[in-house]
Amino acid sequence: MNLTTLCYIERDNKYLMLHRISKKNDINKDKWIGVGGHFEDRESPEECLLREVREETGLTLTRYRFRGIVTFLADNFETEYMCLYTGDEFCGNVAPCDEGKLEWIEKDKLFSLNLWEGDRIFLRLLIDNAPFFSLKLRYEGDSLKEAVLNGEKILPAKAVKTD
Amino acid sequence: MNLTTLCYIERDNKYLMLHRISKKNDINKDKWIGVGGHFEDRESPEECLLREVREETGLTLTRYRFRGIVTFLADNFETEYMCLYTGDEFCGNVAPCDEGKLEWIEKDKLFSLNLWEGDRIFLRLLIDNAPFFSLKLRYEGDSLKEAVLNGEKILPAKAVKTD
Repeated sequence: MNLTTLCYIERDNKYLMLHRISKKNDINKDKWIGVGGHFEDRESPEECLLREVREETGLTLTRYRFRGIVTFLADNFETEYMCLYTGDEFCGNVAPCDEGKLEWIEKDKLFSLNLWEGDRIFLRLLIDNAPFFSLKLRYEGDSLKEAVLNGEKILPAKAVKTD
Repeated sequence: MNLTTLCYIERDNKYLMLHRISKKNDINKDKWIGVGGHFEDRESPEECLLREVREETGLTLTRYRFRGIVTFLADNFETEYMCLYTGDEFCGNVAPCDEGKLEWIEKDKLFSLNLWEGDRIFLRLLIDNAPFFSLKLRYEGDSLKEAVLNGEKILPAKAVKTD
C-alpha cells in the first residue's frame, strides 16, 4: 500500500498548480496536478504535507485543511491512498520545482487544463467546499472506469429508464 | 505501512465496546477497544469499515462518520494509520465475536475501563464531537510518550514556568 498527500494551495481565488513537464517517464507527464508525494517512515499525514509542500514549492504552510481521502486503483499499480489538503496561509516565496512548472491558476480556468478525469471530481468537491469525503477512483490505463463517493457510486452513472 | 479502521458504534448514548479477552498473545489483551481491522487489498476506508463491522459484530452499518486519522508509532512495529469512525445507524443483531466479548457501555463509564492511554484522547474527541482530526501517538511499550493533535503537541504537556 502506498500513502501520499496532495495539496492545493490557494491565493486570490487561484490554486497553485504544478504542470508536470520536467521528468521523463512521468506517469503525470503534461498533466496539471497539485503538489505532494509519498509518506516517509513515521510521518503523520500533516508532517508529510508540510515537508512535500516545502520541498516542491519553497513555501511553508501555516494553515491547511484535511479535505478527504482518495483511494486510487489502477491496473499494475499498488492501491494508493491519498490524503487531500487545501492550504490558504503560508510564508515564503514560490521557488522553482524539479518536477514541473508551478503556476497560479484561476479556479474557474482549472477545468480547461489537462487534468486527470478523477482530479476533476475532487477539484469540484474542493471548490464547492464539500465536507470531508472519501472518494474511490478506478482507472484502466488513463481512463477512469469507476468513481465511488462516500460509498455511493457516481460513475458510471446509473442507467435512466426511458420507456 | 499498515492501514486499519476502528469504529465505535453508538446506541442510546452507549458505545459498542470489544473486551479483548479471547485471543492468546493479543497485543490488546484485556483492553477494551472498538471494532475494526486491517484493510484488504483494493478496499477503500469505508469498504474496510463495513466489512470489519459485519465480521466482528454481525451488524450492517447504514450510517457512519469518518472522524479522524490516528498515526501510531511504537517500538518494533510498523507505523499504523488508523481511520477512525463512529456509526449510529445499523441493521441486524449483535453476534458473538471471535476476538472478545462485545458490550454496550454508557459513554460516561467508558473512562473507567481498561483503555489504552491514547484511546482516551481520541474517545474524548469523539464524544465531544470534535471536527475531523489527525492524531499522532507514539508509544514505548504500553506507555504513551507523545501525542500530537492536528500538528500541535498535546503530550508531554508544555512545562509551565512558575518562578
